[in-house]
Amino acid sequence: MKTPEIKIGLVGCGTVGTAFLKEIIKKKNEIRKKTGINLTVSKIYDKDKSKKELLPDKFVSSVDDIIADPKIDVFVELIGGVNPAYEFIKKAIENGKSVVTANKAVISEKGKELIKKAEEKGVYLLFEASVGGAIPVIKVLKESFTGNKITTIMGILNGTTNYILTKMYYEGINYKNALKKAQINGYAEADPTLDIMGIDTAHKLAILSTFAFNTWINWKKIKTEGIDKIDIEDIRFADEFGYRVKLFGISKIHRRKLELRVHPVLIPKDHPLSLVEGVYNGIYFEGDMIGRSILYGEGAGSYAAASSVIADVVDVSRRIVSGGKTGDIFYTGKEIEILPFKEIETKYYFRFTAIDKPGVLAKISKILGENNISIFSVIQKGENPQKAVPIVMLTHKAIEKNVEKAINEINKLDIIKKSTVVIRVEE
Amino acid sequence: MKTPEIKIGLVGCGTVGTAFLKEIIKKKNEIRKKTGINLTVSKIYDKDKSKKELLPDKFVSSVDDIIADPKIDVFVELIGGVNPAYEFIKKAIENGKSVVTANKAVISEKGKELIKKAEEKGVYLLFEASVGGAIPVIKVLKESFTGNKITTIMGILNGTTNYILTKMYYEGINYKNALKKAQINGYAEADPTLDIMGIDTAHKLAILSTFAFNTWINWKKIKTEGIDKIDIEDIRFADEFGYRVKLFGISKIHRRKLELRVHPVLIPKDHPLSLVEGVYNGIYFEGDMIGRSILYGEGAGSYAAASSVIADVVDVSRRIVSGGKTGDIFYTGKEIEILPFKEIETKYYFRFTAIDKPGVLAKISKILGENNISIFSVIQKGENPQKAVPIVMLTHKAIEKNVEKAINEINKLDIIKKSTVVIRVEE
Repeated sequence: MKTPEIKIGLVGCGTVGTAFLKEIIKKKNEIRKKTGINLTVSKIYDKDKSKKELLPDKFVSSVDDIIADPKIDVFVELIGGVNPAYEFIKKAIENGKSVVTANKAVISEKGKELIKKAEEKGVYLLFEASVGGAIPVIKVLKESFTGNKITTIMGILNGTTNYILTKMYYEGINYKNALKKAQINGYAEADPTLDIMGIDTAHKLAILSTFAFNTWINWKKIKTEGIDKIDIEDIRFADEFGYRVKLFGISKIHRRKLELRVHPVLIPKDHPLSLVEGVYNGIYFEGDMIGRSILYGEGAGSYAAASSVIADVVDVSRRIVSGGKTGDIFYTGKEIEILPFKEIETKYYFRFTAIDKPGVLAKISKILGENNISIFSVIQKGENPQKAVPIVMLTHKAIEKNVEKAINEINKLDIIKKSTVVIRVEE
Repeated sequence: MKTPEIKIGLVGCGTVGTAFLKEIIKKKNEIRKKTGINLTVSKIYDKDKSKKELLPDKFVSSVDDIIADPKIDVFVELIGGVNPAYEFIKKAIENGKSVVTANKAVISEKGKELIKKAEEKGVYLLFEASVGGAIPVIKVLKESFTGNKITTIMGILNGTTNYILTKMYYEGINYKNALKKAQINGYAEADPTLDIMGIDTAHKLAILSTFAFNTWINWKKIKTEGIDKIDIEDIRFADEFGYRVKLFGISKIHRRKLELRVHPVLIPKDHPLSLVEGVYNGIYFEGDMIGRSILYGEGAGSYAAASSVIADVVDVSRRIVSGGKTGDIFYTGKEIEILPFKEIETKYYFRFTAIDKPGVLAKISKILGENNISIFSVIQKGENPQKAVPIVMLTHKAIEKNVEKAINEINKLDIIKKSTVVIRVEE
């Protein structure tokens, strides 16, 4: 029997595209031995013409040349961003091609429409590399945990912010300098807004939550705070309390409603997610059969993402070659009500900046008590009647709206010299 | 269109079988919504007739009644052990049924033959639950990391021994008492030999290594040491050095040869695997594209295993219903030479028990030096000229055969009062 061949069209030769191209060519024989399929990249497009040097014979001068080619089975989109990626993917599907993409923006924004379209056309749309880099988080969630009622997804989904927080912790440098290091080392873009403001994490959390809870999650509905206000002082105090500061995406079922939030958290040092350092990602799942599970690996990096793109291409190719029709493991159920952010219940870290005189702690704790916030632990450092000093606190579980109210009142006290820092605690 | 139905025959209603049965019935609607397939358990067998109460209508009085039933598509084997499971699986495959099993013994012993037979008959044989409980380690290795050249697999694959070592660490109790606790709490069997001697870990390591390195690994070729000689004192000294003691399965490519070993290790406390506690498992992968990745979750427990059995049943059912023929992602390549255990190179922990007089350390270090073993760090505790005291040491990298030779020589010194404890160090 002749070895079946799958023809691939690649759009986008940035770092991920180049890594994908290099590896899929290098490993062609190995993949054929494993799967019985020849994977051939037959056409490549990049708007940067200098990329042509990579494989001059295969370069074409327009995306349409790939989309319109009836011989191409799998369309690999690695340009990123919503536009024009969305149009390309849509047209490729309409032309009967299966699509593999690493693009979290287009999936979180247009996934609902594109998945429906792929289903109608009887083709496949896979996007493992859009979340968690090399970590097969979407496949595991859909296929391996399919017998579970998932109750929590939580973790570190963005390599850039985790790199910055890791540098701050180990080198004692402030946020601005850590961001600069990340940019110099290629771990943060010139405009890092999407990463540091938590938007990238919200995109990824929306995708994961959609498949965990069988309802389309609009990432814009996710309450999102970035790491730009994290001070080196808070990282040090957290350390003293036995915690690390990380940017988390959190999605959990709470009283039949869905909590969705992205913000910095304090996480205990004996929690496995606290050891996720640098550009690594770690995703925690809770389900009724699996109990607790964590997937950990490189969340950024061109080879890590390309590893997941190859896995998806192999997956799609095996299904095409099998001659059968394998549907997706997914349905859209009832919409789940999203718990208003003010209703969430968690533990808190506060850093007050207060003048150093007797009675200060009493005033603060009075207001906390009146708002049903109970103190678990306090650190008061330094004595200096001339200057404001930090008072740092961990609380028991409290409700967000009560915390907002209390902190507003406290910030108005004349003993308070700076706006109070509030970081939520996960355990 | 009528919803396609897949009929399941279940053999074995122990704790995993019962959990599987309960959950697959409870979640039938949810799975149908996700996959478009009705999963129906149509026949059940257990040698214990009292299990009939679970679902009296479905119980049959012989395994043959299931194996011979042409209407049954998937044969689920959950009895464990090589025999008679092997005969049952073989016959089911011969009768054209796909098989799902959680049985590491039968797969590590007979997997080569059974996989070949399944391929010949055009049916599927899946066994995710045989390694790592709820952790989808086989699927991830085969499907998600398929573009990678895997260089290392390493980790905690046995819940019983990890539970015992965790109890020893946190409660300061000795091995015998910790084993007793494990037995009382149902985490160790009355005869715990397979677990504590590392044989269960060797079975699982052989299965993982087979798929990582595309060559059938005979578990009997794996050098295996158990945890029965781990003393509470060693756990305490390791702690002082900043390490935890864990039972590891290790499989890595080293100078084009394959290192295969199961033994206790010291692992640094800032390594994510050191936080794998209790009955949890954690498996570390290294590959040329993924870099480093860890999967963590419940390694034991009936619901954890049943979660993986359901995933496999869904996987097989989707392939059957698709009408296509999806081959496995696996081939048998050249045999890889196994590195003789004496050639391995690693760091070591030694605990000498020596009389407390001047010159002792000099004598020990002289022999170590003569054998090319270089000391990294020493703890010498207590002063007691009347009694033997422990001298504890971490070394730089050394070669196993040199270590064996040196320790033999040292044990013969008249200053040494007990056989020296040797534990390897992983980082």
